[in-house]
Parts: sequence; C-alpha cells; structure tokens
Amino acid sequence: MSFFLAVCIALPLFSQARGKIDIPDLKGYVTLKCDFHIHTVFSDGKVWPTVRVDEAYREGLDAISITDHIEGTRNKSNILFISHNHSYNVAEFAAKNTGIIVIKGGEITRSMPPGHSNAIFLTDVDELDKPDYMDAYRAAKTQNAFIFWNHPGSESKSFGQPDTTLWWPEHAKLLEQGMLHGIEIVNGGKYFPEAHQWCLEKKLTMIGNSDVHAPMPVAAPGMHRPMTLVFARSATPEAIHEALFERRTAVYLNEFIIGEEKYLKELFENAVEWKIEKTDLKEELLVTVRNKSDLTFHLKKTNHDPRVVYFRNISIIPYTIAPQATQTFTVRLLDGISSGDVNFIVENFISEPNKGMKYTIKVRK
Amino acid sequence: MSFFLAVCIALPLFSQARGKIDIPDLKGYVTLKCDFHIHTVFSDGKVWPTVRVDEAYREGLDAISITDHIEGTRNKSNILFISHNHSYNVAEFAAKNTGIIVIKGGEITRSMPPGHSNAIFLTDVDELDKPDYMDAYRAAKTQNAFIFWNHPGSESKSFGQPDTTLWWPEHAKLLEQGMLHGIEIVNGGKYFPEAHQWCLEKKLTMIGNSDVHAPMPVAAPGMHRPMTLVFARSATPEAIHEALFERRTAVYLNEFIIGEEKYLKELFENAVEWKIEKTDLKEELLVTVRNKSDLTFHLKKTNHDPRVVYFRNISIIPYTIAPQATQTFTVRLLDGISSGDVNFIVENFISEPNKGMKYTIKVRK
Amino acid sequence: MSFFLAVCIALPLFSQARGKIDIPDLKGYVTLKCDFHIHTVFSDGKVWPTVRVDEAYREGLDAISITDHIEGTRNKSNILFISHNHSYNVAEFAAKNTGIIVIKGGEITRSMPPGHSNAIFLTDVDELDKPDYMDAYRAAKTQNAFIFWNHPGSESKSFGQPDTTLWWPEHAKLLEQGMLHGIEIVNGGKYFPEAHQWCLEKKLTMIGNSDVHAPMPVAAPGMHRPMTLVFARSATPEAIHEALFERRTAVYLNEFIIGEEKYLKELFENAVEWKIEKTDLKEELLVTVRNKSDLTFHLKKTNHDPRVVYFRNISIIPYTIAPQATQTFTVRLLDGISSGDVNFIVENFISEPNKGMKYTIKVRK
Amino acid sequence: MSFFLAVCIALPLFSQARGKIDIPDLKGYVTLKCDFHIHTVFSDGKVWPTVRVDEAYREGLDAISITDHIEGTRNKSNILFISHNHSYNVAEFAAKNTGIIVIKGGEITRSMPPGHSNAIFLTDVDELDKPDYMDAYRAAKTQNAFIFWNHPGSESKSFGQPDTTLWWPEHAKLLEQGMLHGIEIVNGGKYFPEAHQWCLEKKLTMIGNSDVHAPMPVAAPGMHRPMTLVFARSATPEAIHEALFERRTAVYLNEFIIGEEKYLKELFENAVEWKIEKTDLKEELLVTVRNKSDLTFHLKKTNHDPRVVYFRNISIIPYTIAPQATQTFTVRLLDGISSGDVNFIVENFISEPNKGMKYTIKVRK
Repeated sequence: MSFFLAVCIALPLFSQARGKIDIPDLKGYVTLKCDFHIHTVFSDGKVWPTVRVDEAYREGLDAISITDHIEGTRNKSNILFISHNHSYNVAEFAAKNTGIIVIKGGEITRSMPPGHSNAIFLTDVDELDKPDYMDAYRAAKTQNAFIFWNHPGSESKSFGQPDTTLWWPEHAKLLEQGMLHGIEIVNGGKYFPEAHQWCLEKKLTMIGNSDVHAPMPVAAPGMHRPMTLVFARSATPEAIHEALFERRTAVYLNEFIIGEEKYLKELFENAVEWKIEKTDLKEELLVTVRNKSDLTFHLKKTNHDPRVVYFRNISIIPYTIAPQATQTFTVRLLDGISSGDVNFIVENFISEPNKGMKYTIKVRK
Repeated sequence: MSFFLAVCIALPLFSQARGKIDIPDLKGYVTLKCDFHIHTVFSDGKVWPTVRVDEAYREGLDAISITDHIEGTRNKSNILFISHNHSYNVAEFAAKNTGIIVIKGGEITRSMPPGHSNAIFLTDVDELDKPDYMDAYRAAKTQNAFIFWNHPGSESKSFGQPDTTLWWPEHAKLLEQGMLHGIEIVNGGKYFPEAHQWCLEKKLTMIGNSDVHAPMPVAAPGMHRPMTLVFARSATPEAIHEALFERRTAVYLNEFIIGEEKYLKELFENAVEWKIEKTDLKEELLVTVRNKSDLTFHLKKTNHDPRVVYFRNISIIPYTIAPQATQTFTVRLLDGISSGDVNFIVENFISEPNKGMKYTIKVRK
Repeated sequence: MSFFLAVCIALPLFSQARGKIDIPDLKGYVTLKCDFHIHTVFSDGKVWPTVRVDEAYREGLDAISITDHIEGTRNKSNILFISHNHSYNVAEFAAKNTGIIVIKGGEITRSMPPGHSNAIFLTDVDELDKPDYMDAYRAAKTQNAFIFWNHPGSESKSFGQPDTTLWWPEHAKLLEQGMLHGIEIVNGGKYFPEAHQWCLEKKLTMIGNSDVHAPMPVAAPGMHRPMTLVFARSATPEAIHEALFERRTAVYLNEFIIGEEKYLKELFENAVEWKIEKTDLKEELLVTVRNKSDLTFHLKKTNHDPRVVYFRNISIIPYTIAPQATQTFTVRLLDGISSGDVNFIVENFISEPNKGMKYTIKVRK
Repeated sequence: MSFFLAVCIALPLFSQARGKIDIPDLKGYVTLKCDFHIHTVFSDGKVWPTVRVDEAYREGLDAISITDHIEGTRNKSNILFISHNHSYNVAEFAAKNTGIIVIKGGEITRSMPPGHSNAIFLTDVDELDKPDYMDAYRAAKTQNAFIFWNHPGSESKSFGQPDTTLWWPEHAKLLEQGMLHGIEIVNGGKYFPEAHQWCLEKKLTMIGNSDVHAPMPVAAPGMHRPMTLVFARSATPEAIHEALFERRTAVYLNEFIIGEEKYLKELFENAVEWKIEKTDLKEELLVTVRNKSDLTFHLKKTNHDPRVVYFRNISIIPYTIAPQATQTFTVRLLDGISSGDVNFIVENFISEPNKGMKYTIKVRK
C-alpha cells in the first residue's frame, strides 16, 4: 500500500535545488543578483544566518550581505555577544561549496538624520560599534567599505522619519567626506523616486534590497525578492566591490528594472531579438520578437509618424513581451513610405524617476 | 498497491464544479456575469455548443449567448444545415438544471462598414439570413432584439477594417433607425477607447465579450474571461433584456471594470468597507479597508491638502487592495488640522476612456 | 504607470491569513490539530520562537509545543542562557489573540537507550536539566507532564540508534514507573509500525509530530505538516492534557490517518454521507457519497458476495473520494437478491500497523 | 496606466508552446508518446479535429489517431456526411509543420461481443462501414490495419457489457483470423488487469489511450493523459506500424508504466543512474540516485539478507525517486560482509497484472 500524493508534492517545497534568474550579462560584465540588506537573529531578524544562505541558494542569488544592526536590538537580551562578525562567520561557513558570495557587513542604526546606513565589505564589524555615528562611518571608510543610506523614505515614525523624503545636511557632509557611496532607491517592496533623482544628480550608486527579517517565503514562479543587479568583471567579492564604487548597478523590483539608461538599454537589447519580414499584404511587416530572458517587458507606443501603424489597440493594456517567449505584431507603412520608426516606451524599465525608457525600432520594407 | 498522485490531482482538472465570481450587487439590481459573443462548430468555432455551457458553468457565468456567424463560415461544408437556431437549441437543452440562461443570438457578418454585429434575444435566427445587411438588421429589430456592434477596432484587414477605429455613416444610420443599441468596447483581450467615448456620447450600452472560438482554457485562480456585467432586476432573460436597453452594464476585463461612473462608484462602495481609528501617535489615523469581493483595486493618490499625509511611497507601484482581504494604511493630519480628504484614483476602474475613477475618503480625528 | 503582477502575487506569500484544516469532530469532543515537537534557535532550530506561532497560524493548527533540547545543542555557544523556559515565553507572548495554544515543553535528549523524549505541560523546564536522565523524567512526572518517546525508529547513528527499531528495558522501566505515556509513531515524514504496535499493546498514546528545525515551508493546497489529532472536550490546555492521558488521539501524515479503529471509524462516518437510490436499470443502485471534510479516502473492495457487483475496475488505482466532493458509483444486485454488503478497505486509514481499516456499506433495493 | 496581472498570467493558458514528456529511449528505438483513441464532432466528440492536434502539440505527444465511431452516433444528424476519412483529413492538414504524426483510424462500434475495436493505419475508413461487423474487420485487415479491442472491462450496460471482464469466443475467432492485434489494457483512467494477462498469454500488443470526447483540459505540471509508449525504430508512421505489430509498447497511466518486464527494466535503467560510495561510518555506504526522466519511481524493499540494512522506515510510504531529481539513501553492511543485494520492487512499474517490478542493486564496500 502506497500513498504518494503528499510525498511527491512535498519534495519541491522542502528541497533546495539551486534557483536561476535569467538576466543577460552586459558587454565585459557578468550580471550578479545581490541582496545587501538582510537580518538574522543576531539583530532583530527571525532566522539563523544559515537560513539566509539556503534562501539565496534556492532563489538563485550570487551574493548576499548579512547586515545585522550594530546597535542594541530586540533580540539582544537573548543572544550571547561574541562579536558583530559572528552572523557573517556562520553564514560564510554555510556558503562553502554553494557558489554564493557572502560579504561582511553591518547596519549603522541611528535616528534620522542620518537614519540607517549599511556598510559592506568590512573587515571587522566590531570597529563600527561607536557612540558617535561619525566615528562608525569613519571606521567603515578606514576599512574601505562601501556605504549606502537605507530606506531614505521610510515611513517609520519611531526612527524619527519626517513626513517627506529629505536630503539632510548630514548626508551632504557624509558624501563630502567620502563616507556615502550609494542609496537604497528600493527597500522591500518600496521605491523612492526622490532617492533615484539624488543618485542621478550626485553620482551615487543605486541599490535595491529586501531588508528581510522573517523567513523568506518560497517564491512563486516568476516572483523574486527585491535585489541589486551588479555588473561586475567577474563573480568575485573584489569585482563586486569595484562595480559598486563604479556605480555599475541596476535595481530589480517586481517587474521593474530601475537604473541608468545606458545599462537598461543594454539589458533590453541583450534580452530581446527582433526579426522584421514582409507579409502577403502589400503595406504590412511582421515583427517577431524573441525574449531570451526571465524579464517581462511592457511596451506602449509614443509619438510617431501617423503613416507607421502599430500597436493599434494598446492603451490601458500595454503590449507585453512575456519571459522566454517568441511573439509577433504587425507594422503597416502607409502612403507608400518604405521605412519608419516604431517608437515606444518600455514602461517597466525606469530610467528616470517614475518614467519608463524610450526606445525605437527602425523598420524597412 | 495504490497510486494516488495522478488521481487526486486529476479531479479538479476534469470536474465540473460550479464556479463563482464574487462581484457586489447594486441597489435594486443583481450583478449578472454574461458573455454575449461565443462561437461553436455551427460557424467557425471549434467546439460543440454543450461545451460552451460546461465552460460557463465552471467559470460561474449567469448568462451566455451563442452567436454563430449567420453567413457562410469555414466549417460550413461539413455541417448539415438544419437551422441557424440549432446551436442555441443544443446549448439550451444542455443548460437545463444548471441555472445558466442561454439567449438566442447570431452574428450579422459583413465587411466594414458596418462590420460585424450581434443580435441577441432573437426568436428566429433564420429570419436574419438575408443578402442585404439592412434587411438582416430590420429582421432583428422586428424580433425586438438587442443589437450591438462587435470589435469596432478590429485590426483584421480581411474584413475591410481601416487603420483607425472609425464611426461610419452606416452606424449613424443604424443608430438613427433604432437598430444599434450597444458596442463592444471590449472584445477578447482588447479595449477600444474610441468606442467607450461613443457609448458615453451617443447613449449606447457598453458591452464586453470573449468572442471565443477555441475551447476556453481552464482559468487560473483569479483569472476570468472578458464579460459584460449586467445590473438586472432579477436573473431572468426578460430582466437582462430590459437592463441592456436601459444601459445598466459595465465591462470586466482582466483587473479592469469599465463603465459609467455611477455604476463603478456603487460597485466600489459595495465591495469595500472603511474603518478609521486613532492610533497611539498624536497625529495619526489608521485606516482599515476590507474588500468583500473578488475584485482588486489599485489606488494612487491625487492632488490633496499637503497637511494630509498618506500613501507616502506610492508612485510606480500603486496601493493595491487584494481580493477578499483586510488591509491597513495610515493617514497623518499635520499642523493641528482635525479632518481632511484622502483623494485618490482607482486606476483600474475606467470611468472615462483610458482614465481611472476619482474617489475621496473623508477622515476625521 | 502601474505594475501589478508582482504585488498581487506576492500578497498570498507574505500574508498571514489564518489557515483551516477541515477534519470532523467526534461525539463529545473537538478535533484539535497539534504539533508537540518543534525546535527554535534556543536549541538547534533555525528560527525565532515567534516564527513557530506565525507558521501554526498560517497552517490552521490549534496547539503547539516548542520542545527545544534541554541538553547542550549546536547553537548553544551563541545563545545567552536565561532559562529553558525562554523559548516558550517568547512564543506564548506572540500567540496572544491568535487562538493558538502554546504548551510548555522540552526534549530530554539522551543516546539510545532511552533515546529522546518530549515532556510537555511542564511548569518549569529548568528542573529537567539534570545529569542523570532518570532525574529529568522524575522532575517531569512531578510536574504532571505528559511524556512521550520520540522517533523510536530513527536511523541516526550519532544518537546510538541500532539497525532495528527496539523496545528496550529502559522503556519498560519508564513505563512501569509512570514516566512514559506515549510514543511518536510518526516523526517528520516517517511512520514506525513497530511503535504503532507497542501503543496498541501497552496502551500508550499515539503521537505524530513534525520535529521541524528549519523554517516551515508554505504548504501547497492540500498539504500539511505531520500532526497529532487530539479529541478534546474543549480547546483548552487542560482538555488537551486530559485527552492525551486518555489516549484520545490519532496521527495525520500526508493522506493517512493512523490510530485506534474506534476513532478512525467515527472520523470516517462524520466526514462522509451516503445516499443509495434505484436507477432506471432493474438491478442497479446508485450510491452518492458526499465528503464534507478536507480528508481524502482511498477505497479498495475486499471479499464479498459475488452477486454484489461494484468497483469493477478498481485494482492498482483505488476508488478515491476527493476532499469536499460529491461523487457517485453504481452497485448491481444480481440473481434477484434485494440487498447486500459493499465491503471495502479504507487504505489510508491505518487502524493496525501497515493495515487499512475495513468498512461495509449495506445496500438495499 | 498598465494592468499586467491578467495579461501575463493569461499567456501560458492560451499559448500553444510545444510540450515535452521526458521518458528515455530504448537501445535502437525512440520512445514515442501516442494516443490512438480520440473522438471529434465527426462522431460523438465535442471538438473540431484541429483541436486534437493543438492538444497533442501542447502536451508533447508524437502521434495521434482520431478514431471516430464509424456507425451512427449522437452528433450525426448535424454533420454533413462527406466521408469517414474527413476528420482525419482535417486533423492531418492542421498537423503540418507541427511534427505530430496523424494516423488514419476509426472505431468499429458494436455491442458486446465483440464490443468496440479501433482499426488504425487505414487507407479508407469508408470501407469499414458495413452491416456485418466481420466484414468491417476484414476490410481493416485488407488495408493492413492494426486492430485492437477497446475498453474490454467497460462498465457501460448500454453496450451490452456483462458484470465481469470476459474473453469471448468472438475474440478468439478474430484473433485466429489475424484480425485482432492488441487490447486496451488502459482506457481513460481505467486499467484492466484481465486484459493485461491476455496480452501476456496470447502475445497481443498492450495499448493505453485517453478515449477523450470533451476538450482535453490543460494538464497541471506532472500530469498527462493516458497513452501508449511505442518503441519505434524512428518517428515515422511506418515505424509505429512495425512496432505495434512487434508488440514493442508500454502503457503510461498516471504514475504507472505497465508493460512487458524487458521494456520496463530498460526504461528504469535508462532513466536512473546509481553511484555507491563509502561514508565515514565503517559499515555504511551512501547510494546516490539520479533520475534523468520525468517519471517517478516508488520503491519498497523485499526479502533480503538481514545483514544488508536499508530503507529502514519504508512501509506504508515508499521510497520515492522524484522526477529529474538526485537523491541519496544509506545501506549498511553488518557482520563484516563486504557486499550484498539491495532488493526492492518498483511499485508503479507493473510488469504482471497488479504487480510491481522486482529489481536488485548490488552494493560492495
């Protein structure tokens, strides 16, 4: 007698197969999927550091940083203080042979201003446990850490956040002194367009993280945690460090990619192949689009020559290119013209605060 | 020895449990879920009429109309002509004891203009099989049919569709002679904002249908075919007929409801309950929203008194009220004000062409 | 611009709606779903105790006991020892207003013999931290604890388990001295038929638990963790304590219910309703079976009067009654007999070690 | 404004990506997935023949035969009789460029005896439309058709089926005259062990088919329709014809493979790779099993040398090898023996009526 149902279905739930997120590389760089803001029981998180490695393995991440709060936290009375380096040590040991890079980090936790920041690529987190926050930032800088401001638009009153998202004099000072290199423009499910603008203006690196505290739920197909895409020369800690300081990142949130237009454009072009052919109808061209990535693209037409007819019924519903799919649409060239521009916006590729990326496909008969 | 996996999983696939779509009723009216544009093998569809009843039963529809093309169609050479009423007769017999209303209909199929129209609530479809299309419309009118123009923005060149969505003199004439009562503003997955505008201006009934030809796939949870919501005095053919002529409809497409603002507003108010309470923070109110329906609502804030602070980080991602869920958000009243307006747009409730519905919640300490 | 996909799908993953497992009550008793073997970071588990309450809430459990190892465990060097009661205190505080009963417990962890045992309904776990295991059991008994032997057929060599599942003199002694009240016949996904037999012979309570260490994965629909069903006079700690000592339990593992026949029979009869009617065929009866529970039943016919014909093609595939379903099958009474017995075995109701429960439906024309 | 949820989720439902069922080939033969019993509106089925090709494409089948009833059927009054070859012609045209082989067939439909049979690889189905069933079989034989008896254990009284599954003199006669080559041992979800036995004894080909009439539901992951696996020299109609006459088939039903032991054994061996290594424990071996197929295997241990210890807690729950998975288990060799036999039964590989296939893995330190 055999009862198979539960056994079989249970397997995928409990198993730990390596996940995979298919996003194209850029020329000269590999695209690494990274989460640089993660908590464990060693601050106010709810899981042991090894769980964070298991989750990253299952989800297909390349690098994580466990960034427990350096200052007193909810669980503190129950945890024997060994060192602020301890959660890193536990995770790093668990990550052996998984291919996952674990980066030593910590969260410098103060009321606003300057709020919370993460310092990663630390050599000794304990050195950052200082009464004066400037001393903590200085210690991080001394260790050649990459420092970024967390959730600048947090709505949490308890951390002294105001009712608007502001750039404070304290951040200007940190930036000036070389102790602020990036900002979370995405934290958890939230996007901060003001911070996106600051990154563009002040040449700061755009970062997006989960800030997860509870166990990470098993992702449904097509779902993923918020993460930073790092365009690195190789899959090594050193290469990630270099890429972060050179601002070679984008942020992946739900179906959005947020970042500098040059990276978004190259990602789009490396993900999608176009083929344009004549059809039996005199004026008509058939466009075949092949999406070789796990990304989704939502297109809407923009201003264009009215003699180029395409996306006729695209208004509230965009033209969606599904992941790993091959699709077609038609373009008609009227009044005898033999070529034209198919202009559209990729609505979910956010190249400026709250704005999609413009793109043009040139077609010719 | 027993092998249960396949058996158990197979059941939901093959079974025919009655579906349910939970959308609120309006005051004095029941909300009926209807599809008035469906094909079978008796024109160019791919299934026997009984399958259409099975699908409607499984999906939770209240009424369907099988509207096979009256004129020559692809399958014609294989089907023994009995009568254009035959597909209705087969479906109507299968619908006994299911609670599904089957309405006799047919599609008057001509090149543009005037394109295709459906006539439903016919008594004898055969009377519409006339060489001159005006004779077909007149026969439908004589039978007191409800007549609507199908897919006015179709991109199909073979039916003589132009490259823009146009209102032709032929439609003006049909309207003038009382032979055009509604338009499909939704057909399949497509929405036609021009037709939406015409319905508002010319007092035509807004209709949305699947126009399904192949077998209807089993819907994933939360998915549904495009349909017309009819606000009828009762679940009877007569009440649907009256409601259609009185333009008491809305269209349900993906997560959109499209229709007149008065119906959308009442649907929203009957679906959602608000509770507003003080919190421990002096200036703060906690808003609890309970969604008693299967609908989803996507809210974005609009112009408002800057002293009323809410939806802080809503920009590219809206505030989403999930189906059958209870959720909360906070509102802060600054500068000592004791009440204010929470203004937002329900992005997926389309009350004007391509525009969401505005709404305001008044809050008070 | 709005990107809904991820937001909407994410909600069910992260939300904490109360789960529900629909298993019938017995006459005079409510059926409580309980897991009495759970670990946290306070021994060698991987999550904070509050996570165990969240999981139980999501899965629809009524009672849990956190039973961290009392003796030295892997995480010990990192956890500040406050008290063995601490994980209970943290979970119990989190469970307020959830309706979940948290029972204070601990795991007495020794090599075989006697192996591991859980003591639950303790008043002070610290009292069990004794060098001599008999002192620990005595302390548990003094506190009126319910004590059960864990995973008697564990294959773990490191705990001194032999290559067969044995009842040792040490267990006989514990039983004799009133310090052994039950046995895990199920631990994790494993079932121990030897222990099932011992429970029947020695009048011990049958227990089944998850023994979970990692975060509990979100269960797929129809999936559940291994658990003990407790038939209690009410949903209170006192009633669970009484029911455990009175051996009113069964074990729920995958699609199996394992336990004493009297409980299995009543569960089956309270879950399933039968209706027997004549059909148009002279010799035929139509049996309609309605399953009002979330349980599945797999039936196979057993020896019977050959003039009673039913389940014709049931051999490797059983006759399966799906959860919450209404199904039919036919019975034919040949040679003019007017009544007969439909004999079958419910293969997944295990009333004796490795054996399904026999059952008979009497039919009459 | 963009509403993505429904659009994205809708795509996989409506799309027609080519399916794939990963079952190993045998030495010298490709394993073709075939369904030789399918209905359309041209008898009592509910869909147009093209739908059958779409379904086969989506599910990953290699060959289908549309086998409409040759004799009068329910839909007949509505279908213009052209020819019994017509449903084949429609399907065959639709299958161009799909890679799906469509085989011309028909169902000879009589009351029992001899009941229903399918004749496939016909050249002209119309020739089988004869009043005397023997004339129909003779016509099929003349065309070099492969003829098999359908659902020999059907419970349908209307076709004159008795209350037991019997081999009638009529079948003996057909066999003797070379007009019966195989039997459906599986039809729909049903398995007929008596027919399995007859195939073994009388050297008949084992066939399993869906006998689908309604639209085929979209299969959940891991689900598939009942089908015949044909071990053919190539993926051509001629090779399938040859393989069927040479009895190189097995039947795939839910998680079962049913067939001759030699084929089942080779399928198992080509699907599964074993690696046996020493562990740190003196007596222990670690067995790693890699399943390269979509098949599931359920193992239970059988009689064996008690000094070879494995599958300790396998009783009501088998040891399950999941599809496309790599798993491990341990074997212990006691009393200093250095090799031994791991004996088990593959419960869902049915090599004799109602019996699983025996297998042995030899292990050595």
